[in-house]
Amino acid sequence: MRAYDIVKKKRDGRELSEEEIRFLIGGLTLGEIPDYQISAWLMAVYFRGMSENETLHLTEAIRDSGEKSPFSHINGIKADKHSTGGVGDKTSLIVAPIVACYGVKVAKMSGRGLGHTGGTIDKLDSIDGFKTDLSPEEAEKVVNETGLCIIGQTARLAPADKLLYALRDVTATVDSLPLIVSSIMGKKLAADDDVIVLDVKTGSGAFMKTYEESVRLAEAMVKIGKRAGKKICALITNMDKPLGRAIGNSIEVTEAIQTLNGNGEKDLTDLSVELAANILLLSGKGDGDIKKCRLLAKNAISSGEALNKLIKTVVAQGGKSDLILHPENFKKARFFKEFHASQDGYVYKVNAEKYGEAAILLGAGRAKKDDKIDYTSGLYLNKIYGEFVKKGETIATMYSNDEKLFSAAEQKLREGTVISKEKPATENVVIAKID
Amino acid sequence: MRAYDIVKKKRDGRELSEEEIRFLIGGLTLGEIPDYQISAWLMAVYFRGMSENETLHLTEAIRDSGEKSPFSHINGIKADKHSTGGVGDKTSLIVAPIVACYGVKVAKMSGRGLGHTGGTIDKLDSIDGFKTDLSPEEAEKVVNETGLCIIGQTARLAPADKLLYALRDVTATVDSLPLIVSSIMGKKLAADDDVIVLDVKTGSGAFMKTYEESVRLAEAMVKIGKRAGKKICALITNMDKPLGRAIGNSIEVTEAIQTLNGNGEKDLTDLSVELAANILLLSGKGDGDIKKCRLLAKNAISSGEALNKLIKTVVAQGGKSDLILHPENFKKARFFKEFHASQDGYVYKVNAEKYGEAAILLGAGRAKKDDKIDYTSGLYLNKIYGEFVKKGETIATMYSNDEKLFSAAEQKLREGTVISKEKPATENVVIAKID
Repeated sequence: MRAYDIVKKKRDGRELSEEEIRFLIGGLTLGEIPDYQISAWLMAVYFRGMSENETLHLTEAIRDSGEKSPFSHINGIKADKHSTGGVGDKTSLIVAPIVACYGVKVAKMSGRGLGHTGGTIDKLDSIDGFKTDLSPEEAEKVVNETGLCIIGQTARLAPADKLLYALRDVTATVDSLPLIVSSIMGKKLAADDDVIVLDVKTGSGAFMKTYEESVRLAEAMVKIGKRAGKKICALITNMDKPLGRAIGNSIEVTEAIQTLNGNGEKDLTDLSVELAANILLLSGKGDGDIKKCRLLAKNAISSGEALNKLIKTVVAQGGKSDLILHPENFKKARFFKEFHASQDGYVYKVNAEKYGEAAILLGAGRAKKDDKIDYTSGLYLNKIYGEFVKKGETIATMYSNDEKLFSAAEQKLREGTVISKEKPATENVVIAKID
Repeated sequence: MRAYDIVKKKRDGRELSEEEIRFLIGGLTLGEIPDYQISAWLMAVYFRGMSENETLHLTEAIRDSGEKSPFSHINGIKADKHSTGGVGDKTSLIVAPIVACYGVKVAKMSGRGLGHTGGTIDKLDSIDGFKTDLSPEEAEKVVNETGLCIIGQTARLAPADKLLYALRDVTATVDSLPLIVSSIMGKKLAADDDVIVLDVKTGSGAFMKTYEESVRLAEAMVKIGKRAGKKICALITNMDKPLGRAIGNSIEVTEAIQTLNGNGEKDLTDLSVELAANILLLSGKGDGDIKKCRLLAKNAISSGEALNKLIKTVVAQGGKSDLILHPENFKKARFFKEFHASQDGYVYKVNAEKYGEAAILLGAGRAKKDDKIDYTSGLYLNKIYGEFVKKGETIATMYSNDEKLFSAAEQKLREGTVISKEKPATENVVIAKID
């Protein structure tokens, strides 16, 4: 078998066999097939697409490229929630403690933020002392103790995905449905949780800008998950506007805590409850009734139990519980600047991508892989979608340790904001469910 | 400017600017843009094609990637003939001496054979003592003395083409019209001859299998040549069957000498005369009348002058003139084996690709770049297209220094030969002219 023939076969639009796909991914992982053949193949996949079978085989080849089932010593049902990436999305910090209250184990490997969307690990790193680089063995210990642990992705899990993604990133082959599906699901199948709930974002701040694309992605991932024997579903959710009011790192942890305290913004609370309810449902809780599962999720918040779970986990992972009980003690950025409304009216559009970019400009994210993050910087939305604002009132507050960054960020906010005399329609955060 | 954006732009089907193409080819040549980005770009070009302007700019960027005009000290009109590669094609050895008789200078850089087609340099290397590795300066001296010199391609001419071709070869991106055009014409424009006559082969033994593809390739190359100020035309010629009766190296030199002696096969003589006549025409000879130019070409053969030119050049390049006067003195292969007709009938099909592959199997060519050539091995066609053969009579004779190679080669001949009761139609070797 030769890599050349596999590239040519895909170029010509013929279906690759499982053997051929495994040969390619195996050769990539071992460094035996050169990057230039893989990248030509990636571009051919971009143009030709992949059949359902090819996508499954690619996913499985990625899954099998490294260590598997890192948390096999955890007893009980293990669940994971995965988002395709959004702005202001701190739901992992809310959903995981909720489901842990009902004995569903969450040993989550999370990624760092890249581009305009944030990563859960960066958010947790803003908690003094919190260790996200535990080994899988240490993480298992935490889970068996508290029901929950969130750590960074290890390099040993699905290494082919890292290699493929690095090439896709520099060869303009990121936007390919089968490549996205196999990248996400290859890692998920390697992590080997029993239950997977996918949050597929749609809209201006999402990777998939249209509803139709998001549904296609969700359907493809759910199908792959089911063929691999997983309990899986996907929610298509609104990422046209940011989620909640906070965009950044410590500022998002603060908002997650407020939500677990029962004082969360409606969209953030609704989405967190719906994600948690679907995990509980697939885990066999609530008598198979989604309504009962929603109630369970809400009860975990109102009883304070979910917050307790978070506190215990933060302590178990080395962080200070004081910050969770008193988030006002998080270190503050040295400077802030308000962004004011230029006219009276309703906040009609809050472009999530522009707001995400503004937060990055303030220091809250990475433009390049090796950029340092300023955990205290970010955005707080004083007014959100649908709220009325008077001329001169504050729409958003920018935080940064570098005053010079405000003007570029404010420019993004201006571009991303529309004020209108007309009140916009109420929008549900959860648009559809694919299962 | 970033390579990534150029790859993406081509991927999305947008036209690249001259600046962008030069950035890419310059970066490739200097080793500043990695292979994996170039190969992704090549695959995107395979799918999206290139506009006429893009192809021109790519050709010019390849031309400008190294040394140019290596023969600028030759006085008078310089001409080149280029073939897209065929089986049994020894026309360069006939055409160059013909036009040199009329003061048209030929300082030809030729390639080595690869795949099932032969290279002029390999054929000349079969002449004892003949040096094909002269420097351009030495070659100029020979041309000023004899009017004619044939040497191997130097690495300094159009180095970007070598780099691109090496990548195309392993990424299944060879079969792309703009990439073929820019590869051929980039080198031709760097060599900077005044007159260029292209021999675009069509049929089973050619790179372009269909007439339509060949015409498109010819038109694109002629257009590029004209935009660069060259006198240029292309002949579309038959490569469904081998040219002449000899396939190999010394055996092809022998047939070229016979043709210059006036005893050539009709198809080989016709094509050589037509190519030479078109060079003479574009060089301003024969009062701009192609018929007169054909007569000039024929006269150069019948007078023996063209053969004299070849002898002088062989001597000037270090070869033994004795071999040109007495080609029967060429070293012979140790073994031969005849391929016999299995029935009475006319030779109805002689598949050029299969016959070319048979010659390679006998040792006459390279399957891989670094393979050694056996100059004495090859094929002689005792019967050619349209001739009658009796059952048991010899259709072709195979020559090799390794008896074990005969059976695989004979298998190819069997696959490539059709004998029929029906006499096939007479076919002209020159099918069309594009100018």
